[in-house]
Amino acid sequence: MNPESTSPGQRWAYLGPEGTFTEEAVIGLRDRWAAPGVVTLDPAVGVAVALKDLRAGAVDAACVPLENSVEGSVPLTLDELTHGEPLVIAAEVYVPITFDLLVRPGTGLSDIRTVGSHPHGHAQIRGWLEGNLPDAEPIVSASNGAAAAAVAAGELDAAAAGSRAGVHYGLVPAASDIGDVSGAVTRFVLLRRPGSLAAPTGNDRTSLVIFVDNRPGTLLAVLSELADRGINLTRLESRPTRNQVGEYFFLIDADGHIAEPAMAEAVAGVHRRAAGVRFLGSYPRAIGRTAPAPEYATPQAYAEAEAFVAELRGQGVHR
Amino acid sequence: MNPESTSPGQRWAYLGPEGTFTEEAVIGLRDRWAAPGVVTLDPAVGVAVALKDLRAGAVDAACVPLENSVEGSVPLTLDELTHGEPLVIAAEVYVPITFDLLVRPGTGLSDIRTVGSHPHGHAQIRGWLEGNLPDAEPIVSASNGAAAAAVAAGELDAAAAGSRAGVHYGLVPAASDIGDVSGAVTRFVLLRRPGSLAAPTGNDRTSLVIFVDNRPGTLLAVLSELADRGINLTRLESRPTRNQVGEYFFLIDADGHIAEPAMAEAVAGVHRRAAGVRFLGSYPRAIGRTAPAPEYATPQAYAEAEAFVAELRGQGVHR
Amino acid sequence: MNPESTSPGQRWAYLGPEGTFTEEAVIGLRDRWAAPGVVTLDPAVGVAVALKDLRAGAVDAACVPLENSVEGSVPLTLDELTHGEPLVIAAEVYVPITFDLLVRPGTGLSDIRTVGSHPHGHAQIRGWLEGNLPDAEPIVSASNGAAAAAVAAGELDAAAAGSRAGVHYGLVPAASDIGDVSGAVTRFVLLRRPGSLAAPTGNDRTSLVIFVDNRPGTLLAVLSELADRGINLTRLESRPTRNQVGEYFFLIDADGHIAEPAMAEAVAGVHRRAAGVRFLGSYPRAIGRTAPAPEYATPQAYAEAEAFVAELRGQGVHR
Amino acid sequence: MNPESTSPGQRWAYLGPEGTFTEEAVIGLRDRWAAPGVVTLDPAVGVAVALKDLRAGAVDAACVPLENSVEGSVPLTLDELTHGEPLVIAAEVYVPITFDLLVRPGTGLSDIRTVGSHPHGHAQIRGWLEGNLPDAEPIVSASNGAAAAAVAAGELDAAAAGSRAGVHYGLVPAASDIGDVSGAVTRFVLLRRPGSLAAPTGNDRTSLVIFVDNRPGTLLAVLSELADRGINLTRLESRPTRNQVGEYFFLIDADGHIAEPAMAEAVAGVHRRAAGVRFLGSYPRAIGRTAPAPEYATPQAYAEAEAFVAELRGQGVHR
Repeated sequence: MNPESTSPGQRWAYLGPEGTFTEEAVIGLRDRWAAPGVVTLDPAVGVAVALKDLRAGAVDAACVPLENSVEGSVPLTLDELTHGEPLVIAAEVYVPITFDLLVRPGTGLSDIRTVGSHPHGHAQIRGWLEGNLPDAEPIVSASNGAAAAAVAAGELDAAAAGSRAGVHYGLVPAASDIGDVSGAVTRFVLLRRPGSLAAPTGNDRTSLVIFVDNRPGTLLAVLSELADRGINLTRLESRPTRNQVGEYFFLIDADGHIAEPAMAEAVAGVHRRAAGVRFLGSYPRAIGRTAPAPEYATPQAYAEAEAFVAELRGQGVHR
Repeated sequence: MNPESTSPGQRWAYLGPEGTFTEEAVIGLRDRWAAPGVVTLDPAVGVAVALKDLRAGAVDAACVPLENSVEGSVPLTLDELTHGEPLVIAAEVYVPITFDLLVRPGTGLSDIRTVGSHPHGHAQIRGWLEGNLPDAEPIVSASNGAAAAAVAAGELDAAAAGSRAGVHYGLVPAASDIGDVSGAVTRFVLLRRPGSLAAPTGNDRTSLVIFVDNRPGTLLAVLSELADRGINLTRLESRPTRNQVGEYFFLIDADGHIAEPAMAEAVAGVHRRAAGVRFLGSYPRAIGRTAPAPEYATPQAYAEAEAFVAELRGQGVHR
Repeated sequence: MNPESTSPGQRWAYLGPEGTFTEEAVIGLRDRWAAPGVVTLDPAVGVAVALKDLRAGAVDAACVPLENSVEGSVPLTLDELTHGEPLVIAAEVYVPITFDLLVRPGTGLSDIRTVGSHPHGHAQIRGWLEGNLPDAEPIVSASNGAAAAAVAAGELDAAAAGSRAGVHYGLVPAASDIGDVSGAVTRFVLLRRPGSLAAPTGNDRTSLVIFVDNRPGTLLAVLSELADRGINLTRLESRPTRNQVGEYFFLIDADGHIAEPAMAEAVAGVHRRAAGVRFLGSYPRAIGRTAPAPEYATPQAYAEAEAFVAELRGQGVHR
Repeated sequence: MNPESTSPGQRWAYLGPEGTFTEEAVIGLRDRWAAPGVVTLDPAVGVAVALKDLRAGAVDAACVPLENSVEGSVPLTLDELTHGEPLVIAAEVYVPITFDLLVRPGTGLSDIRTVGSHPHGHAQIRGWLEGNLPDAEPIVSASNGAAAAAVAAGELDAAAAGSRAGVHYGLVPAASDIGDVSGAVTRFVLLRRPGSLAAPTGNDRTSLVIFVDNRPGTLLAVLSELADRGINLTRLESRPTRNQVGEYFFLIDADGHIAEPAMAEAVAGVHRRAAGVRFLGSYPRAIGRTAPAPEYATPQAYAEAEAFVAELRGQGVHR
């Protein structure tokens, strides 16, 4: 995927409404990966709706949050990627998460009786609210942007949301950076239907879902398929399967691209070892650099080794 | 820890208020592990408060949720275990999470304008609310039990909470089992200050937090320290460190007890390999059975091997 | 290689002269692998001569001893396979080594003043000679067969050789089974020029020479390339390189055939990891059965994994 | 073992007679490791005799050849170390093997009808003899020194032996450096009865015999016990067991000393994993330097890890 190659007339869904961190993410992705003017952004009322539209072909891509540096993975997105009809990650972007307490102009702190935000937003501002507005009632909104819209409509007094929401809905901050943890970052991904693959850039990630049965040593055998080919993991997370408490699957982010021979052989090895594997895409890494492959795992080392074996195998049967 | 040995006059904190799933968990733990009458249960207004009281010595133990089969780990608990002053797990219990929509007697579904629950509760009943009470306003409560208390006080119309809360606050279910995922289970742990260790039962878990630097292969080297000694992992989860996006630490649950030689040697190996390791306790496993140790990792195999080497090393220097 | 396919008019060299264990071996190989009448056997005066003829194209194959259950590897053969112009093993056979003390008819034990044998023969009958003929002079012969020929010619009184040599040279045993170790067996191999490969039989061996540099862990990394693909080693021997004391190379016999995907990938992996690798052939195993491949290493598991990855990689670039 | 500590009045056997390479080796060992005058050297008529005397307590140590850079391991020594009553290596020395053709003064090349040497000597001068004295009769002697003694006694015309033998028996070289491979080196070891252990020097080897059953992966599991603790192998050799062709045991030389914690834990691990293990001693390395231990395998890393676990395990049971 690159700006030159994005076909005109694309529609990308994102977790709306306007004014959310996801909108900031999808704009960043569009500016980075699409030529000007070719992509229309389309806010959806939920992750499930955005992905349903993507699967149905109503949109060409969908931008959703994947993990937050404070709260961890976003369960809904993981669930869709793991159990839903297959989708792949085409790109990623990291967005700093800074909460403002947004109010209508003229509202003072002491006027605030109700504060809206998404449940995850509430989880991140709990400390600030307790310390500064202990009597305000926290209200669950479908999103931080929806909370801001409700403030603009006069239905709520304040919303905990990003500054973009303030700009969008004509609100002003009664307080800024009210999250309990500073430096919070959320990783957003742009999903597509399988069948398209981002071209290798030399600094890529490959994401996999690996289902592992309960036999001792199986997880390690699976991870060895990656490590023995010099592939570095940047993320490894277990999640319970829906079948039984005590059974898990693993989400893995690894340095490298499926078009590279080391990754291709490693993914094939995982396929042979694991109870199941789902490919979530190879795509450009947004932060950090892939470590150089060890000497034994470079494309050249693979090419030479394959030529060596091909010659051995190509010999005729002796007579 | 066993019923006979729990000293009288203990106080155990739990994430209150009364009527929550955590109360159900702590009662289960008390009934299993303490003699009748020796433990007083003490609801706390939050995980942080309960653990602060525990660290300060105001209580002897604290019961908090650790992970949910739908939502994954509870960030606040993990954060305390990983970054706070050290605590250890003394016992665990699994509690089925079934939400009722609790109302005051006489309230009908059509009378409900407001529904309270903890943010995690809201996350698990979203589908049901959209389908059945699309116009009801979801209100964030500090806990499901607090929502039920607010219903009893007439401040809210309904609360999504466990049936125990209904009994406690004199409410009745307007609807039952309204969670979007059936079969949800939450794992609760009883925490204590370091310095006490549950006696081995033959079916134990050991939990560790392992800090791993970014060098390729380090994670695998660390996991090999466990696997090569025949130790089975039942949970492995990465979490971002607070220092930098892209750096992670790992939470591990493994079969076995630190009093067993294979686990002791493995934990020492992890200590040598990892950038850091925090011991979160060895404690009885509440569900499932530890697989028998492979022949090379039994206590007897360790005892024989150590005797063999001790004899070799004990020889005098030749002259 | 099979009886039907061996082309007529072949010449196979063997370590002569007639009457040696090697002749027994090469006859066994011919009877097993060549159709009647198509192969002429050609005794050579030494391993080096046989292999020189093979390399020069003067013969089509050469049978030489590779290892003995008492004495270990035959240095000369290993040296040729490791450092000489490449040759490959096409077949193997095991021959029991039983020494008779062969004399001309009429010679009694007390008449024996000189006993000839190959140095390796002398090494294996030393105990018997000391106990039974302490005054006899042991004479080095180029081979056990040559010693028997010298007895027939009246140049020596006795020869330690196999019974076949007695039949061939008209000698009789003055004593039988005089080896110090009973049950000795020698493994002989039929070598060919590279370019022909025995067809897989389902019970094959692959032999490799692997050059490993001195870095810690390299040997294990190389061996893991085989073990991680479920390949069992039946022999592993280090030998000093000629370059420097303290440096070694490794000779490996492994279950499986280079035509099988697990072995092909493993040999490619060894090629990538090792300082050097020499393929010594895939050929039918003469004794014992190859263990069944683990589920993750069957040809079917490989085919499915390769198809899975090929489909992933074959996707178009998204736009 | 060091010069100061060798007790006076010791007797060391060696594979005699005088004038052999083994005598050169044992003198080198004595000069390096024993104070002047405290050790009497005692030539034995064979490896078996020397080791029998050692086991019986008739001597304090025995010097025998272990491996040759051309011929490989010395089967008789390996056999004694592997299957005989246990002995341990106390020290090692490497001796260059250079053959002279020794004759009585006045004998010319053309006068030589018989050439004596040990079978291994014959194996190493075969090429030279064929090229230079094709008509001379090679005679097997019990040792190169015995061949030189026979020349001095007029029983043979020439002996292939080291120059030391010439000096000892008053012979002169008719030709020098007649071995087919230049640069040949033999490694000799000084054996003692178990119960004494050389003090660590910081540059030591540990030798083991490891018995491995036929199950796939067992060898690798055993080797991992060493590699995972950062221990480097300098030699690995398989040898057939006496029980069955196709079964092997392994001889391993590894960097480090059993008194070091990494080696102690590794040997214990091998004990747990292997079908059997025999300790052949920890002793100073005569050539080359042990690579520094990786950070995770230093004595300090072990001490810290053990302290960490000891503290965890020492906690009282909670009540």
